[in-house]
This record gives sequence, C-alpha cells and structure tokens, in this order.
Amino acid sequence: MSRLNLDPQTAAQWHREVDVLVVGLGAAGAAATLEATALGADTLVIERGGGGGGTSAMSGGVIYMGGGTPLQRSCGFEDSADEMYKYLMASVGPNPDEAKIRLYCDGSVEQYDWLVGHGVPFKQTYYHGTSGEPPTDDGLVWSGAEQVHPFCEIAVPAPRGHVPQIEHQGGPLLMKVLCEEVEKCPAEKWMNARCTALFQETDGEVVGAAIEVFGEVRNVRIRKGIVIATGGFVLNDTMLEHHAPLAKLCGMRVAADGDDGSGINLGTAAGAATLNMSAISISLPITQPWGLKRGVLVNAQGQRFVNEDTYYGRLGEAALLHNHGRAWLIVDDAVFEKPTYFGEVAGVGESFGELEGELGLPAGSLEATMSVYNRHAEKSEDPVFHKGRDYLKPLDTPPFGAFDCTTEKALYAAFTLGGLWTDPDSRVLDPNGDAIAGLHAAGRATSGISVGGYSSGLSLGDGIFFGRRAARTAIAR
Amino acid sequence: MSRLNLDPQTAAQWHREVDVLVVGLGAAGAAATLEATALGADTLVIERGGGGGGTSAMSGGVIYMGGGTPLQRSCGFEDSADEMYKYLMASVGPNPDEAKIRLYCDGSVEQYDWLVGHGVPFKQTYYHGTSGEPPTDDGLVWSGAEQVHPFCEIAVPAPRGHVPQIEHQGGPLLMKVLCEEVEKCPAEKWMNARCTALFQETDGEVVGAAIEVFGEVRNVRIRKGIVIATGGFVLNDTMLEHHAPLAKLCGMRVAADGDDGSGINLGTAAGAATLNMSAISISLPITQPWGLKRGVLVNAQGQRFVNEDTYYGRLGEAALLHNHGRAWLIVDDAVFEKPTYFGEVAGVGESFGELEGELGLPAGSLEATMSVYNRHAEKSEDPVFHKGRDYLKPLDTPPFGAFDCTTEKALYAAFTLGGLWTDPDSRVLDPNGDAIAGLHAAGRATSGISVGGYSSGLSLGDGIFFGRRAARTAIAR
Repeated sequence: MSRLNLDPQTAAQWHREVDVLVVGLGAAGAAATLEATALGADTLVIERGGGGGGTSAMSGGVIYMGGGTPLQRSCGFEDSADEMYKYLMASVGPNPDEAKIRLYCDGSVEQYDWLVGHGVPFKQTYYHGTSGEPPTDDGLVWSGAEQVHPFCEIAVPAPRGHVPQIEHQGGPLLMKVLCEEVEKCPAEKWMNARCTALFQETDGEVVGAAIEVFGEVRNVRIRKGIVIATGGFVLNDTMLEHHAPLAKLCGMRVAADGDDGSGINLGTAAGAATLNMSAISISLPITQPWGLKRGVLVNAQGQRFVNEDTYYGRLGEAALLHNHGRAWLIVDDAVFEKPTYFGEVAGVGESFGELEGELGLPAGSLEATMSVYNRHAEKSEDPVFHKGRDYLKPLDTPPFGAFDCTTEKALYAAFTLGGLWTDPDSRVLDPNGDAIAGLHAAGRATSGISVGGYSSGLSLGDGIFFGRRAARTAIAR
Repeated sequence: MSRLNLDPQTAAQWHREVDVLVVGLGAAGAAATLEATALGADTLVIERGGGGGGTSAMSGGVIYMGGGTPLQRSCGFEDSADEMYKYLMASVGPNPDEAKIRLYCDGSVEQYDWLVGHGVPFKQTYYHGTSGEPPTDDGLVWSGAEQVHPFCEIAVPAPRGHVPQIEHQGGPLLMKVLCEEVEKCPAEKWMNARCTALFQETDGEVVGAAIEVFGEVRNVRIRKGIVIATGGFVLNDTMLEHHAPLAKLCGMRVAADGDDGSGINLGTAAGAATLNMSAISISLPITQPWGLKRGVLVNAQGQRFVNEDTYYGRLGEAALLHNHGRAWLIVDDAVFEKPTYFGEVAGVGESFGELEGELGLPAGSLEATMSVYNRHAEKSEDPVFHKGRDYLKPLDTPPFGAFDCTTEKALYAAFTLGGLWTDPDSRVLDPNGDAIAGLHAAGRATSGISVGGYSSGLSLGDGIFFGRRAARTAIAR
C-alpha cells in the first residue's frame, strides 16, 4: 500500500457533505473554522484529541503582530507594516516567502482586531524583560531580535509579541477563548476523529475525506475545500531523522500529541510538495534575566559564535545547528546571577586559564577569546559579533564561572518549521507550483513565515492568519 | 493539474511492454541496465539527453570502494569492509543509513570486480597528493577524510578513491566504457526520451510509464519494475531554494542538464517520501597542493572553524553551511605557494594585526587566533581542531598573506545529496516506510550513502551499487 488518496467512486456512501472540512483544532484550525462559518459556509471541524487546543494550548501564547496595533500604540511604540516587513524579510531565514510576509504585515492590525473581536484579552501594558512567556499579565513583549545586530540597523525596532492577559503562559487562555468561540459557532465538531485519507479525482481535485471516529470510518464529501491544520512533525522520530536530525538532541519537543506529520503526509500523498523540512525553531533561554546577556557564550573551541544579546531562539539555532549543542555561558562575579530556566555551573576559576581547564577547553582558547572581548568591551564595542552597548561590560571581576549550555544540561526546546508548500492564499501546491484543487493548509503543517530564523509568536501568528485565508480561499472557489 | 500519475485504464494502447524500464543513463542507470539484461530481463533504458553519460560523465570519475580491492592490495594498502563501514558511519552525516552502508561495504570488492569485468581500466598505482581528480593516470587516491581527526581515530585509514586510468578527469572515460557496454547489451535504448508520468493502479502499484520521444507520447507497460536514475536537483532553482538555499551561493553546480529533480518529482507524485533534501556536497579545493594544509582557515570573525587538513568536501561544508561562505586561508612566507584551482590574494601584511586590517577582520581577532595556533603548533599540537602533525607548523615568517576563499572569489562546487527514500534493495518507500510496488530508484535521485558529510566517489559508487540492486530487486518480484 502506498497511496493514501482514494478514488471517489469507491466511497460506497457519503456520511455527510460539507462546504469546508477543517482538520485539526489548534490555533490555525480554530481560525479557519471561525472564518468559514462567519462567511456562511457549512463547516465541519475534526480534531484527533478529545478536545481542541493542540500545541497552541501548550505554548507561551505569544502572537507576533505589529504595524501599529492598538496595543503597541497604547504602550507608546510606533510601528509600521513596512518596518515589520523589513525585519521579517531579514530575520526569518535564507529563503523568506516575500508574498506571504507582505500580506502578513499588511494584515496584522486587522488580525489583532479580529482576535480582540473574538474575545482574546490583551492588557494594554508593556513588559520589559523576559520574552516569550512574561511572568506578568502584561500584553506586549519583545519576542524577537528586533533590537540587536544586524536587525536594528535594517528595520526600526518595535516589540511585537502580543500575549493574552494571564500570568506566565498565555497559550491555554488563547485556545480556551478560541475554542469557546468555535463551540458557539454553527460548525459541526467531531472530536477523537482523524482524517486517514483524501478522496481525489483523477485530475487531482480533492473532493472528500475518510474520517475515523471511534473505529468507524465516515466518508465526508467536500464541496469547497479541506483545510489541513494538523501541526508539525517534531514527534515523528523517523521524519525528524530524515529531515532535521539534530532536533533529536533537544531535550524538549514543543508539541501536543498530534504533531506527528500526519497532515503533511496526507498532503504529499495527494501530490503536494514540501519545503524547508530541515528548518527548526530551537529556544535556548539562557539569557534570562536579561542581565546575563552581559555574559559571553563560547563553543567547544572556546570561541564566541553569536551576539549574546540576541533572541533566545537565535541563540538556540547558533548553538545547536552550528556548534552541535556544545556551549557555555561565561560570567564574572559582577555579572553572575541565577538564570531563570536552567543554569548548572560547569566550572569556576580565578582566571580564564583556570576556567578553560575546568571546562576542558583547549589551552589558551578562552583566554584569547576573552582578551579580544574585554579589549573591545572596555570601549563599549564588539566588532566581532556586534553585541549592543547595554550589555557590553568587560568580564574582569574574578572568580569567573560558566553555565552549562550543552544539550545534555540545558533546555533546548524544538519544534519544526517546514511542511507543505502553500501559496499566500493557503492553497497547497504541487512540485510544479500548481495548486491542488480543494486542498488548503495553514499552521505548522505548512512552511510559513519563519523558514529557519525564529521570533516567538510567528507560529501562532501565521497559523491564525493563513488559517483564516485558507477558509476564505476555499469558499471563494 | 497536480498528479503526474495516471490510471492504467486511460492508456489507450501500450506502445511497448518490458520487464524493466530504466529512466536515465548516467552511472546508476547504466549499472541497472547492465544488471537487468545480464539477468535476462527484457529491458528498456531511456535518456533525456541525446546520449548516455549524464552528470557522471562530467565528474572526476572517482568511485569510492574499499574493503581490500585488488587495486588497494596492489598498492600495498590493507583495508577491510569493517574499517570502511566504521569510517562511513562516522563521516557521512547526522543520520547515516546503517543498512545501506553495511551492504555497500560488504559488496565493495565485488563491485570493483564487476567494473573491471565491464572493461573499466584501473592502473594499479597510487597517487599521493591532489585528491578527487589526480593529474596523473594513477588508479588509487585519497578521496575523503580518512587520515584526519576525528576519523583516523575511529577507523584504520585507507585510500578508497578508485579512478579510471586517464589523466586528469576519469568521469568521461568511465561513462564511455559503461555506455559502450550498454550499447552492446540487448536492452532497447531510446535517447531524447523523457518519462513524463507513471501509470499507477489504485493500490499504488506502478505498472507503466508515459514517455515523450520527439514530441510523441509512448505508453510503456512495465511487468517487473521501473528504476528511476535521473540524478539530483541542483539545477532546479525552486527546489534548491526550498530545500538547500545556501547552495545557490556556490559558483559551480556540478550537473548535467538533467539534474532538475524530475525523477524525484515523478516519485513523490506516486506517493514516495523524500529525505535529507537539505544535504549538499560542497567542494572547496583550496588546500591543493597539500602543502597549503599548513595554512590556517579563518572566518569573518578571524576564528578558525575546521582542521585545515581535512578533505576539501568537508572544508566546503564548514565554510558554506556554518560560516556563510566567508573564509580566508592564512599563510606565511614559508608556506606560501600557488594554489592549484584558485587563490586570489585578499591581503598581505607584515604582522597578523596588519593582515586582519587588510581583510576587514575585527581588530585583534586574527592576532588572537594565530597566537593560540602558533603556541600549540610549536609543539606539533592542535587541541582546538586537531590538525595532524604533518601540517602543523607555526606561521611565523612574514610577510603573511590570505587567499580569498569567499563564495565570490573561490570555487565552491555543489550538488545535491537528498532525494527519494529507498530501502537497501532500492525500492522506493512511502512516508510510512512501505514499498511502492514496481518503483525503484538509485543514484542522486535518492538519498544514498552520504547524507551530508561527503567523500568523493560516494555518488558514482552508490549509484552503481544501488542501480544494480534496483534491477535485481525488480526482476525478483
């Protein structure tokens, strides 16, 4: 057996006929469902778990939005769609999808309004400090690398992390609100239901789906389109080995049970192309509290490899993908403080020579690195990696210490960014770039805004944005 | 339109019926054709170009074989399948295919004999020096990183690059011989013929192919199986952007016209999975002649990033994938000599401080790097990257110079390593790991022995090896 797609002639009977079928009830699926029903479409949403939420409900709840949202303005920050666009184009990875990014930025204020309209609460206050999951209920945080080199020279920085109003972790609240909205909307909902195959005409059009509910297979005829919103594949070991093997070194996989690539495979069986399958988001939140950005991150050669003040997602990418998860954060007595999330002390020494010996680094390597660093930091400069002035301080107060940032000891949190190839209207494309009629997708089952360089909030953000577009595109057919 | 595969019912008539159809006449396709006809199968081989050869005929002709071939023994080198296996498992990338590598090593002596039996000449002499494409007609060369850290500590080194007897470039000779063998064999050959679609039963079995020959479409019924041997995708800009965008920075794409991913897309349209699509081979042959391995390769931060005595394929991977193609080879007056392939001088200085200024490197960065390097090199040690003693010499004879190894100025030669997921019997697999009946593949249309770490000769080597297996597996159905 090799093909998941079925000939519609073989459907002995159709259990149900709908305009739009949404597969998966995380943020992308909820957005698609709400948009479809708002437009009057007869909609069915199915979810593999016993209830909605998915990985979105396990997240920090940060949604990357900007361009001058009411929350940004309340907090006194200026922003524009153009500056947001410039930042994303420069930061998201080596092959950014310009058309998607343009739409996403131009539609961001409207997206904020849509979320507020659906009852998602955002406290109109700004939190300076820990990104991603602020310990307070403040609404706006920095969730990317906007303020640091090289991005601060490319685009005017603004905080764009929008967080639902609750302490610590906004994801559960976000999904509680969106799932309640779905509950109230006229869509039919099937829980504990999984799509096992698509019905596809010989010309490629997707016209139905086989759905397994408590062991029973129901064939659903689809008039307008299906929206795959099933999430990524970080829990599928084979796919991870095949596409992003280093992710397996990460101690934490950010995922609900469903993130096994099932929707991606449904799509490819119907002829879809995938892209950026090796791209992963890797968080390494070692520089929290932010005072620790004054430390110096070195690899197994005792060399620096990144500006330490950049976003923790970028720290994780640099440490895992380019230094194989071998990293230590060097501090002196003046800078030392307890890290928020992890921070086992791997070594202490009265000199860098002593410390490099403790860490097993090559003799003289850390000394040489720190000599160059301190020489420039005294002048508030970092010509090597361009760390910003606020965090540039010579490390010259012994004893010196090193926090263990290796994959064995530190929190590396990973999820996948690659997936189905979709156009800006969320239509799934084949290898030639032609749309597969009736097949749409959004969220981490697709390759979205981030294709390798991550800022927090881009996955909830583009899942919601392109989930809504998927519904609109399907209905317009 | 989205599906390339066709319903066999729609084939108005079959132009021809064969046991085995081989698509593509490079090394993998030639091997499959010769094996199929040797086993008595009615075989058709088609080639898109006007004649056979493909990218194999543009290559250096190195074939990675070992385990104690007659040529290795003639030249006085001991080797075993186990040592070859250990080297490959450690060197080919983060997710090596253990079963394929085991078979490949165990079958390597027989593969050598098979090539000799088909008339491929190997001069029974060893060439020490330039790897990959020796300037002489010697038969055996080092074509990987067997002799250097960390691999020399993992497996007993042996040279395994087997090169057909001709000066400079063995690929044309290899393919001349193999194509002549194909010409003589009873297989039917269609040139200027491309496979545009597969006929597939509803259960997934591949039973035919649509072949376009000079504008005419001929439907061919296949009794046993098809072997896709169409090559990689380095000439398909969209696929490169989607899977390996950094490859686009390379000035040279090692490919014949056909390497546009067409066979990979035929496979995925039939339900196949792909893997390691981001893996690329990148050659940066800056350390030829080998005396230049005594130089020091630094990145834009003035830091070393690799042991300079490693194979030029590994230099290219380190420079492009982890340092974005920003690299310079530092030499002193004692080490200076003219590089074989490229080597524009980017800067000269009486001191490293002066040189780093010339190169625009951060002040003090190159000085610090060279201070650590020289300190250890004086003792014939390199605790930072473990370069071997033979090439460890302090760079202390001014003036100092730097060869430009940036992507703009140096030769970066790239081809793709990812492709269709095949099992060790060359059957093409779907995302669940189930074989698609009748569908086989070999060569760079598949993910083979190297999945990211390259040694020269692995592509010709595994193409021939798994091309033959594909034919045998198909016929055994």
